[in-house]
Amino acid sequence: MDNKAKMQLVMQMGSGYGLDQGAWHMPNAVTDAYTNIDVQVELAKIAERGKIQMIFFADTPALTSDISNQPPQSPMDPIVLLTALARETERIGLLTTISTTFNHPYNVARQLKALDVVSNGRIGVNFVTTSNPVAAMNFGDKVPSRQERYEQAHEFIQIVQGLWGSWEEDALLLDVENGKFADMDKIQPVNLAGNYLKSRGPLPIPPSKQGQPVIFTAGGSEETLKILGRYANGLYTNPYDMKTASVYREIFREGAKKFGRDPNEIKVFPGIIPSIAPTKEEALARRRQLDRNGDLRGRVQYLGSMIGVPLSYEQIDQPVPEQMLKHAFANPHDPRSPQALELVKTGMTIRDVLAHGVINYHPVIVGTAEEVADFMEEWFVNGACDGFAIQPDVSFDGIRDFVDQVIPILQERGLFHEDYEGTTLREHMGIPYQYGAME
Amino acid sequence: MDNKAKMQLVMQMGSGYGLDQGAWHMPNAVTDAYTNIDVQVELAKIAERGKIQMIFFADTPALTSDISNQPPQSPMDPIVLLTALARETERIGLLTTISTTFNHPYNVARQLKALDVVSNGRIGVNFVTTSNPVAAMNFGDKVPSRQERYEQAHEFIQIVQGLWGSWEEDALLLDVENGKFADMDKIQPVNLAGNYLKSRGPLPIPPSKQGQPVIFTAGGSEETLKILGRYANGLYTNPYDMKTASVYREIFREGAKKFGRDPNEIKVFPGIIPSIAPTKEEALARRRQLDRNGDLRGRVQYLGSMIGVPLSYEQIDQPVPEQMLKHAFANPHDPRSPQALELVKTGMTIRDVLAHGVINYHPVIVGTAEEVADFMEEWFVNGACDGFAIQPDVSFDGIRDFVDQVIPILQERGLFHEDYEGTTLREHMGIPYQYGAME
Repeated sequence: MDNKAKMQLVMQMGSGYGLDQGAWHMPNAVTDAYTNIDVQVELAKIAERGKIQMIFFADTPALTSDISNQPPQSPMDPIVLLTALARETERIGLLTTISTTFNHPYNVARQLKALDVVSNGRIGVNFVTTSNPVAAMNFGDKVPSRQERYEQAHEFIQIVQGLWGSWEEDALLLDVENGKFADMDKIQPVNLAGNYLKSRGPLPIPPSKQGQPVIFTAGGSEETLKILGRYANGLYTNPYDMKTASVYREIFREGAKKFGRDPNEIKVFPGIIPSIAPTKEEALARRRQLDRNGDLRGRVQYLGSMIGVPLSYEQIDQPVPEQMLKHAFANPHDPRSPQALELVKTGMTIRDVLAHGVINYHPVIVGTAEEVADFMEEWFVNGACDGFAIQPDVSFDGIRDFVDQVIPILQERGLFHEDYEGTTLREHMGIPYQYGAME
Repeated sequence: MDNKAKMQLVMQMGSGYGLDQGAWHMPNAVTDAYTNIDVQVELAKIAERGKIQMIFFADTPALTSDISNQPPQSPMDPIVLLTALARETERIGLLTTISTTFNHPYNVARQLKALDVVSNGRIGVNFVTTSNPVAAMNFGDKVPSRQERYEQAHEFIQIVQGLWGSWEEDALLLDVENGKFADMDKIQPVNLAGNYLKSRGPLPIPPSKQGQPVIFTAGGSEETLKILGRYANGLYTNPYDMKTASVYREIFREGAKKFGRDPNEIKVFPGIIPSIAPTKEEALARRRQLDRNGDLRGRVQYLGSMIGVPLSYEQIDQPVPEQMLKHAFANPHDPRSPQALELVKTGMTIRDVLAHGVINYHPVIVGTAEEVADFMEEWFVNGACDGFAIQPDVSFDGIRDFVDQVIPILQERGLFHEDYEGTTLREHMGIPYQYGAME
C-alpha cells in the first residue's frame, strides 16, 4: 500500500446512451434507454463495481435541443432517476444538477434531504444558475440578469442549508418506552429571508448519515468562485489544457482560503471524454462512426475557423491542401485550436482530424485504455485536478471499458483507490460531515 | 363469475406506522419507519398482494403538527417515496397529494410524468389547494384567498395537462436505421398563460402506458365539485354516514355530467378506518391501547361537546352519569354525534366510547373482519361510494389483516375483484386512456 494522493472520479451519465450525440444508434446502444430506467440502473452498477466515487447527471428544466436526430441531453427527471439509483446501488455517490433560478428552495431542500436519508448519505447537488430562455419561459419568467441570478443563487443555497439544518442532530428520539417521537425544542423554524427568496421551515426530515447532501457547483467565473468558496465541496469544470486547469485549480483553492476554508475540502473535477478501444485506429474508427450521425458539415466549417482557413464539407476525405496550410494558424481565442492545427499538419484527412474530437466541449482522449490512463495521470500528478468527470462517448461500452480497462491501470499505478473508504459521499470525497450552514 | 359491480380500494399509507397517532409505539410497529423506506415498500407489496387498486399518500409541504409524541402525518417526500414504490411493485397504482398552491406546474408535470413512464402507467395525483399558513411561509408567501387558490388551481391543472400532452402520441420514433430519434413537428410548446401561472413547454417526456397520470381531488365543496367535474377521475372524500355519502355521490356524478362527462368515469372514495381483531372486544382493547398515547384529556372534553354535557378526564373510567344523560343531545353540527350519544347511552365507560373512534375524522369500524366487510358492503350496495380509502389504524397489522381477512370476504361476496384487470391505474379504475387535456 502506498500513501500517494488518489484521484477521485465522477461518471457522467446523461440520458442513457453515452455523451456523444451519435451514441444512441451505435450497435450496443439500448434504443429505448431514455425512458427505460433499468438502463441507468445497470450503468450505475457498473460504475459502482469500478469503485467510482459518484455518478452525475447534468440537468436543465427544459427540452433545450432539437431531438430529431439525437436524444435529449438530460434525463426525464433527475430526482426520479436518483431515487431509483439510490435504492438499487449501495455505495456510489449520486449527484445531480439543480437550477437555483427556477425552483423554490423549500421543495429542493426537502427532496434532496429525503433522498440523502434514503440513500444513507450518498447525495450531492450541483447548484447552477440557469440563463436558458426556454427554461425561463417554462416557469413563465424572463431570464434574470446575471447579477440577479447570482444574488438569488446565494440566497437559495443559504436557505437550503438552513432548512437542511432545521432539526438539531439529536432531535429524532424514537423513544417508544416514553412515547417521545421527537424533541420539538430541537426542531425550529429557520425564518430566512433575502431579497428574492424566503422560507420559514423546518423541514420534516432529520439528518442523514452524512448530515446533508454535498454541494457542488460548475464553471469558472468570478461568481462561481464565490459560490464554491462559500458553500461547495466540489467543482465541475471544463479546462481544455493541463496548464489552464492547473492555474484555475490554484485560483479555486485560494478562493476557498479567502472564505476561511481548508482548500483540501474543495475537489476540482474537469470533464474529459475517453473514447477507448483496443488500438488507436479502432478508437478512431468508432469516432468516425459516431460522427457520421452528427452535424459533420457544421463541424468542418468550425474546424476551418479554428485554424483560420475556409474548409468545405466536400474536402472531408482529403487532407487540408498544402497551399492552405501555409496560411493556417491556431485561433488564439479557442484553447482547442493548437491541437487541431497540429493534427491537420500531420496530413490526415479532415474526417480523421474531427474524429480526434478536436471540437468537443472537453478534451477527447481517443485511444487505448493505457493512453487514457496516461492522460489522466499527467494532469493529476501535475496538480491540474483532484480527479475527473468522465464522459464516456457511448454506453454501455464506454462505462464498462473505462471500469474494466482504465481503472485497473490507475489502481496499479497507485492513482485510484481499491475500494470505497466509507459509505457516504462525504467519506468517498474525504470531506467532513456537515450539518446546517458552514461555520 | 358474476357481473356485479365491484368496489375499488385505495390503501392510505401515511408515514409508515398506521394512521392512528399512537400507532408508532404499538408492539409490531417498526420504530424507524418514518425514515426507513423499506417499510413502505413492504407495506405496498402487501397491498399489492391483496389486489388493492392503489396506495395513497396525503401530503402538505410543511411540518404541520407537533411531533413530540407522534410521527409526522406525511412521508419525508412523496415523489421520492413513489419512485421507490414504482420500482419495487409491479401492478398497484401509486397516488400522492400535490399542492396546486405552492408549486410550479412545470416541475410537477415533469416529475409526475417521468414517474408515470417509470411505473408503466400507474401514477395518480390528488391535486388540492393549500391553506395551511406554515406551508405558505415555507414558500415565503401568504395564504392566497380561497377564490385565488381555486382560480390558480384551475390554471395549474390546465397547464399540467397541457404539458403532459406536449408530445403527440407518436412523436418518439427511436428509428435507429434512419437516425430519427423523434419527430420535432410533433413536440411543440403549449404556451399556456393564465392570471397566476404560465408555462411554455414542451416537457422532455413522451406518453406513458396510460397516457398520463390520473387526476384526483379531495373534499366536498362547490370548488372541489368544479375541479372534479372538469379534470378528475377520482375523489377522496370524508362523509361520516352512509346517507350523506350517497347524497354527495349523486351531486358529484351530476356535476360531472354538467361538464359533459360520463359520471361512471368518476370514482368516489370515502375514507374509513378499520380496526380489525378476532373479536370486537380485542379490537376495542387495541383501540384503548392506541388511545393511551393520544390526547385523551382533549378527547373527553370534545366528546362532552358532541353530546352537550361537560365531561372531565377524571370520569374517563366511568359511564356518563345518569343525571347528565338526561340533558344529553346529539350536536346537530357534528355528524358523528348521534353515534357517540348512542354509545354513551349503553352505559359503557367514557374510555370505551372513545375507543369506538367516535371522534375520528372518518368512520371507525372496530370489530372483526366480517364486521368491516359488512360495513363496506352496506355503503357500496346502497350507492354511497365506488369504493373506499382504507386507513388502517396500525401498520403492518392493519394492512396485512385487511388484505388477509377482509379482502377474501369481499371477494367471496362478489364485491371485490380477484385480480387486476390490467397493468395501468386507468385500467384498474376502469377509466379511459387519456393524453393531454380532456376533450
